[in-house]
Amino acid sequence: MIKITGTIMKNIEAEELVNCIGKTISLHGSIYKIRLMSGFAFVILRTKRSLVQCIFSKEYSEYDITELKENACVILTGEVVEDSRSKKGYEVRIKQITVLSQPEEETPVVINNKEIVASLETILDYRPITLRNEKERAVFKIQEGICIAARRFLQEQLFTEIHSPKVVYAGAEGGANIFKLDYFGKEAYLAQSPQFYKQMMVGVYERVYEIGAVYRAEKHDTSRHLNEYIGIDFEMGYIESFTDIMEMETKMIQAVMKYLEDSYASEIALLKVNIPKVEEIPSIRFAEAKELVSKTYERTIKDYEDFEPEEERLLCEIIKKQTGSDFIFVTHYPTTKRPFYAMEDTENPEVTLSFDLLFRGVEVTTGGQRIHNYKEQVAKIVGRGMSTEPFESYLMIHKYGMPPHGGLGIGLERFTMCILERSNVREASLFPRDMHRLVP
Amino acid sequence: MIKITGTIMKNIEAEELVNCIGKTISLHGSIYKIRLMSGFAFVILRTKRSLVQCIFSKEYSEYDITELKENACVILTGEVVEDSRSKKGYEVRIKQITVLSQPEEETPVVINNKEIVASLETILDYRPITLRNEKERAVFKIQEGICIAARRFLQEQLFTEIHSPKVVYAGAEGGANIFKLDYFGKEAYLAQSPQFYKQMMVGVYERVYEIGAVYRAEKHDTSRHLNEYIGIDFEMGYIESFTDIMEMETKMIQAVMKYLEDSYASEIALLKVNIPKVEEIPSIRFAEAKELVSKTYERTIKDYEDFEPEEERLLCEIIKKQTGSDFIFVTHYPTTKRPFYAMEDTENPEVTLSFDLLFRGVEVTTGGQRIHNYKEQVAKIVGRGMSTEPFESYLMIHKYGMPPHGGLGIGLERFTMCILERSNVREASLFPRDMHRLVP
Repeated sequence: MIKITGTIMKNIEAEELVNCIGKTISLHGSIYKIRLMSGFAFVILRTKRSLVQCIFSKEYSEYDITELKENACVILTGEVVEDSRSKKGYEVRIKQITVLSQPEEETPVVINNKEIVASLETILDYRPITLRNEKERAVFKIQEGICIAARRFLQEQLFTEIHSPKVVYAGAEGGANIFKLDYFGKEAYLAQSPQFYKQMMVGVYERVYEIGAVYRAEKHDTSRHLNEYIGIDFEMGYIESFTDIMEMETKMIQAVMKYLEDSYASEIALLKVNIPKVEEIPSIRFAEAKELVSKTYERTIKDYEDFEPEEERLLCEIIKKQTGSDFIFVTHYPTTKRPFYAMEDTENPEVTLSFDLLFRGVEVTTGGQRIHNYKEQVAKIVGRGMSTEPFESYLMIHKYGMPPHGGLGIGLERFTMCILERSNVREASLFPRDMHRLVP
Repeated sequence: MIKITGTIMKNIEAEELVNCIGKTISLHGSIYKIRLMSGFAFVILRTKRSLVQCIFSKEYSEYDITELKENACVILTGEVVEDSRSKKGYEVRIKQITVLSQPEEETPVVINNKEIVASLETILDYRPITLRNEKERAVFKIQEGICIAARRFLQEQLFTEIHSPKVVYAGAEGGANIFKLDYFGKEAYLAQSPQFYKQMMVGVYERVYEIGAVYRAEKHDTSRHLNEYIGIDFEMGYIESFTDIMEMETKMIQAVMKYLEDSYASEIALLKVNIPKVEEIPSIRFAEAKELVSKTYERTIKDYEDFEPEEERLLCEIIKKQTGSDFIFVTHYPTTKRPFYAMEDTENPEVTLSFDLLFRGVEVTTGGQRIHNYKEQVAKIVGRGMSTEPFESYLMIHKYGMPPHGGLGIGLERFTMCILERSNVREASLFPRDMHRLVP
């Protein structure tokens, strides 16, 4: 009987090379690029996170370089030699190349230049291979960093991680924008948010979070909408004000930016990311924000209850000029535009204790305080002409005791897009889902 | 304009009380239980993770204890007094109680005893409140710990976290066990696994993982099946053998168990969890395992290509007796029973370079090496009478160069169930989805 003991063999990592000067080492990876020079060749190896420039010369190796193909997966053996001409201070002189696998064909899109010169549509159609480009893949390392940092921060703040179901019996946000599903003969839906579940779990752990898929069947064919995206959702009990949630988000974003700077410096440099300063985030009431944009740009207000995307962009422009901040909290959204669980302002029930966070022109967060009193919640559902029946288990939490609470949801792809100052949210989704795209 | 600076106000945490002896502190939480004694009362406060026993007496407080209800959410002010009679070495003498919210009614199920005395059906029907029970909620702290530890380990091993779509155009596992969806007039499916996407991403980052939802429309009404569950999936390139994957999993499980012992001691004690030893995991071939069970228990083998659940249970029993291990890897499953991407053993193409991991009688992992050669993969698809058309973008990775690779998927709820030695996987799912259950 064989015993498996958890022993992990490995070749050296690209990042360890600097400590290997004078040694012969083995590296594995994919051949990113071969540049034939007179008498020698540069062979660029793509490893987990780096590109390693190696030198091939007949002086050091008996390998026939004309047999090597780009995109072949290989193990390279080479000597790490100090070299002041190289940016990294050393070069890797190839001694031996073992080919593990060969590509069948050359790629239909050139993926090994600095940028992929193709339309976004083409880049997305060939995503399984275009992601192999140095810059394309760096985007999703940054995205990984956001998730790692957010989780780390929320754990430190004593939030418990939960996994809520995505196949549900009732939508949280209401409306027609919901995907339907046949579930063993019953009608089910794909969750528009983990709203009900995270509120339920506040009654259990006080503070909870989830990073998971969210589904919106919106027929919005824009550069900001995805029909499946990742929500960073948290919900917290025992708040004194809805601004506690904004304080928590601000502190979380501070932690995220710090973590990216500390742990993703190579991707930040490669993508020339301009990490925003987040010492403080200004906050403005919705009605005031509408006025401010209207006055500043002499625009007529068409809709007093909602923002146009252009107004969000202009507001951010004003705030950036006035305060230097890339972020702005907009608070007290009209009650008519918020879901039935949003808490109204006792001083003015026409607005809610809610907020959005705008970041570089785009809304990246919606949050607010929720109703915790049973009678108040039932009255609001009934008042909206809805039935309480689909919400029976949700209303259990109000009936059997809930603390004052609230929370928020951040769209991970939008947040990534805004950090990277990209213009299309699809660039920040590994395999985006929109009205027209279900493949790959 | 208000400025949000990321300042977080808080009451004291239950876990900090031991450092507050002699001080007057504020604590918040839900009233878990009130036990009226002669002349005083025990008031048990449920906080984020602890139960705190407080003493109410008219000697210290002017509050009218008869007005306090179980499940009220409160802020307690009290003095922390050294007391050798208390298990924790101190008691909290209540000075003041501020009620933040009152429950509307008493709970229909008693949730504040050591155990909830009710059927699993009832416990699940009332999940939003039964989870407030001390032991019920401890289960999901353990589950959180598994995820935190798995992620931490995989990050250390240089795996990149990914988010793959769950609304997909083709199923990875084949068969009829797939939920269908109308996606803007097109037929779509809920992903049976992130298989294709994690393989694609191996071509990008070499090592990737995802912890996310997995959907199986299986009509299995058993204690081991859920129709929506959380998969811990990882996939790794540049393997030398499929046993590299088993080594990685073993090391991960070692890390998980260590982390649980270090960070979830209170839940482990409360639930009397018997954390398994995982220094090494024995491994046995599928055919040998079938023989072993058959001989040991004098059972006739009915199906030479698959395990019956009872055989898995018996195999674990034998291995436990022979080696002391709670885990057993079973390898080389028949090719006919594995998906089209499974790599066959060159020495015997009737079996695959694959494995399952059984843990305390239950299969918790399926994994194996995948085909990386384009022609081989196409031939296998065609050989199974399938069309390559739905797999066009998947096959890009093989066409344009893939390293030898493989990976696995672990069912989080099953794994939790086995650690806790529970008999029904629903006990280890916050809001389980099965053929009959879509609510809450």
